[in-house]
Amino acid sequence: MAQSSVYQIESTLDWQKMGEGIHRKMYGYNDHLMLVRIKFEEGAVGELHKHFHTQISYVESGKFEMQIGGEKRVLKQGDGYYVPPETLHCCKCLESGTLIDVFNPRRLDFEI
Amino acid sequence: MAQSSVYQIESTLDWQKMGEGIHRKMYGYNDHLMLVRIKFEEGAVGELHKHFHTQISYVESGKFEMQIGGEKRVLKQGDGYYVPPETLHCCKCLESGTLIDVFNPRRLDFEI
Repeated sequence: MAQSSVYQIESTLDWQKMGEGIHRKMYGYNDHLMLVRIKFEEGAVGELHKHFHTQISYVESGKFEMQIGGEKRVLKQGDGYYVPPETLHCCKCLESGTLIDVFNPRRLDFEI
Repeated sequence: MAQSSVYQIESTLDWQKMGEGIHRKMYGYNDHLMLVRIKFEEGAVGELHKHFHTQISYVESGKFEMQIGGEKRVLKQGDGYYVPPETLHCCKCLESGTLIDVFNPRRLDFEI
């Protein structure tokens, strides 16, 4: 089974560009589970999309306008959300910050 | 399939006592995935244990001495770790803070 190292040390992890104003750092993973930290600049948009993976996220900092399955909500530090498989979702960053995104199974389209 | 609400709003979530100096808030879940935020007071200890679930964690704040499969490391905000299934692990909180713990599958022994 593919798996990450046991420890991920922040200072050794690169920010990878995902899109305009959006960067990610890759954390632990195996075939079933993956954790990714995503940094948004104010105004950056994660376009409407869906995937077969379950996604659960935690707002580490900043403020985000989320839309999940047609339900909109503004989230801030300490809030979280659950995206069922195959559910359309998007976000707009209202104040710069970071999200912790986790996926089951691992996102094979995210380069390690 | 069991699943949480789409949004988890921090101000509506209770801290549940897990042990001496350790409390948790439950976030999103379905049968395959669960996210839990765990707050440690300085000196609190998560005793050595193992489970069949894969666990991946992110250090939101504080400082922790981790031991995973015999490998020790001190982690701080922004670091992370991966616990393979059935691997013994424990932690000692060196400076009060919070961990984001995610599990595959869901921990049925954690009350929602």
